[in-house]
Amino acid sequence: MTTQYTLYSYWRSSASWRVRIALAHKAIPFELVTVGITKERGEAQKTDEYRAKNPSAQVPTLEIAPGKFIGQSLAILEYLEEQHPEPALLPKDPYLRARARQLAEIVNSGIQPFQNLEPTAMLKERGLDDRAFTKHFIAAGLGALERAAKETAGAFLVGDAPSFADACLVPQLSTSRRFEVPLEGYPTLLRAEQSCAALEAWNAARAENQPDAQK
Amino acid sequence: MTTQYTLYSYWRSSASWRVRIALAHKAIPFELVTVGITKERGEAQKTDEYRAKNPSAQVPTLEIAPGKFIGQSLAILEYLEEQHPEPALLPKDPYLRARARQLAEIVNSGIQPFQNLEPTAMLKERGLDDRAFTKHFIAAGLGALERAAKETAGAFLVGDAPSFADACLVPQLSTSRRFEVPLEGYPTLLRAEQSCAALEAWNAARAENQPDAQK
Repeated sequence: MTTQYTLYSYWRSSASWRVRIALAHKAIPFELVTVGITKERGEAQKTDEYRAKNPSAQVPTLEIAPGKFIGQSLAILEYLEEQHPEPALLPKDPYLRARARQLAEIVNSGIQPFQNLEPTAMLKERGLDDRAFTKHFIAAGLGALERAAKETAGAFLVGDAPSFADACLVPQLSTSRRFEVPLEGYPTLLRAEQSCAALEAWNAARAENQPDAQK
Repeated sequence: MTTQYTLYSYWRSSASWRVRIALAHKAIPFELVTVGITKERGEAQKTDEYRAKNPSAQVPTLEIAPGKFIGQSLAILEYLEEQHPEPALLPKDPYLRARARQLAEIVNSGIQPFQNLEPTAMLKERGLDDRAFTKHFIAAGLGALERAAKETAGAFLVGDAPSFADACLVPQLSTSRRFEVPLEGYPTLLRAEQSCAALEAWNAARAENQPDAQK
């Protein structure tokens, strides 16, 4: 297969990381373009050139053909799953399939928005403890994820194969540690994380293994 | 078809509204159970009984069989689309299909989290202008949605048939008006909203047409 995809990514962006996991899991070749989204890295996502690719001015973006861009990590995961169905990242059973998506959304819309750069910067500017705010939503979201996962988990969050849910979990736990959220109350999540750590492809997707990683 | 689904819903919850749209669009019979999520209505989503159905303590939840519950509106939309494919709420073309999902996520993870009850209550308690915070994210998100939609819109946000994107748009514009966000800068979104208003099934899903609506 020739490389047809270009992924715009930032090493520590958990949404970029999810897509890197899916590409690696399915062994899909792609070209990586790093985008420096922090102040120190020039906020490259806010340029007109990048906004033309992604009107939300966020990473990741997947270019699937010249001029055809997809934004939003879960939309990209669904696209990759439909175009490259094997190895699958969603269960075949309709109920478990829905639960994998539900778990992914608990992270994607229930936690991630509150740890993004823009809201935390806004709160900080206004003198609010943005770290406490973010930590609250991380802990609440992980609690919901743990309770939901208990109903379906095997070695992974939904059964014994990795899914979208695990692709959201792994980067989220990394960010949670960065925010110093205690994790001992989430044994089901930690067990799934361990199962993912045994997958070689998934480790290639890790933040610290990216060319734009800062030590 | 006999009724097999039970939807747990709150009239003004935009996430519940999206699912009501999908059920109505596909003419799928369902039983409606209303959940009073505000302080005035008793915060019924926080009871142990409801949390057993939805560990995030949020509406909507779709019960698809006794004891089988799906939470998170987009996970429910995907489930309904797979189980009841016609009439479709996603385009057939892979790129446009991905774009419909991208647009839906711009609302679902880009705007909705910041207008939810919990973060706004937290900000208010801490003396921050929670309405200004929410309005900022609504306007920014609608701007991204308008720019993205321009590339694909016909009568609806993606082409000439309604999709997940429109199912997210209609409730979001209703909430945006409640927050008094000026909407004249989003002509593509308003045109799609008008197209949706001509669909009888979609009007049955509107907040004000629910049995738990407050006048």
